[in-house]
Amino acid sequence: MADYNALPLVVLAENFAKLPGIGMKTAQRLAYHVMSMSSEEAKAFADAIVNAHETVHECSICCNLTELECCPVCSDSRRDKSQICVVESPKDITAFERTKEYHGVYHVLHGLISPIDNVMPDSLRIKQLLARVKDDSVKEVIMATNPTVEGEATAMYVSRILKPLGVKVTRLAFGLPVGGVLEYADEITLFKALENRNEI
Amino acid sequence: MADYNALPLVVLAENFAKLPGIGMKTAQRLAYHVMSMSSEEAKAFADAIVNAHETVHECSICCNLTELECCPVCSDSRRDKSQICVVESPKDITAFERTKEYHGVYHVLHGLISPIDNVMPDSLRIKQLLARVKDDSVKEVIMATNPTVEGEATAMYVSRILKPLGVKVTRLAFGLPVGGVLEYADEITLFKALENRNEI
Repeated sequence: MADYNALPLVVLAENFAKLPGIGMKTAQRLAYHVMSMSSEEAKAFADAIVNAHETVHECSICCNLTELECCPVCSDSRRDKSQICVVESPKDITAFERTKEYHGVYHVLHGLISPIDNVMPDSLRIKQLLARVKDDSVKEVIMATNPTVEGEATAMYVSRILKPLGVKVTRLAFGLPVGGVLEYADEITLFKALENRNEI
Repeated sequence: MADYNALPLVVLAENFAKLPGIGMKTAQRLAYHVMSMSSEEAKAFADAIVNAHETVHECSICCNLTELECCPVCSDSRRDKSQICVVESPKDITAFERTKEYHGVYHVLHGLISPIDNVMPDSLRIKQLLARVKDDSVKEVIMATNPTVEGEATAMYVSRILKPLGVKVTRLAFGLPVGGVLEYADEITLFKALENRNEI
């Protein structure tokens, strides 16, 4: 945006453009939209940013993001504390909760091991997971990282650390997605589906 | 987002979701991204919103958005004040300035006449345009609204009001877009290109 644009709008657009998936053109459009908000709406938006940033932090147990000392899942007495589902990010918890079929607790790693992006095991919440498994009566750790190179590597790394502690470590099943079409399945998925076939 | 998500994050995501073209899923992703910012970045983002909203207003002459009393184009003595290019929104000025070929001034209507959306001529900056044309030595008004039903209707409406004042009112040319392919041109564009053909 050149000098015929209002400077505060340019600054706002540059802030929007820092968000993931938002280019300069969209950022400019969003900045103009902010101008069409009422003062109260704009103030509420700004406050929401600062408020979220100031009050939300990691749960002292599972490292999920929460504004409480301990997140609602960890503090829920009905959840099975002997089962920990290890995920990459808080978003993944939302996906699991949607299934309404998982009653254990979670652990958020906040990333995956990826030497190419300079993400080493030390920068993830693996230490915290180890402490949980050592301290509590944890029976099973479910590695629920994405089925990608980084997700697989992280699942392998974590499971090798956990196994000596005598805990059962499992991995999400790979196979055909429900509602998918065989014809369009890639060869690795189809191979996994064949390999992990079940008797009916 | 259900109750296992941190409330301040839900509020922030809802604010993002109010922006045009941003659904709840993207909004959630953006909210998580804000959490990964430094405190300074989050504060700067929030400040940019409030600052833009408080300091940017319409130019007293052309109604473009600016933080100054009078926008840089209107206060530039090198611009030809006898030529006014009428556009729908401030974004359109950016597009014209990119051509580097327009040396006149602008007038921003802040919308197009659209009875279906309850946008009537009174809610646009037509009165201000009339005042400019009456007061100043304006020779030409270029109607540069979009080639849509609303854009055309607005161009027609404004030109009928301006013509009795003795000013020349022109409309942007319609034709084939440069670099376009004849085969894919719609019939109305092709008809316009044929109708407005020039001798070479």
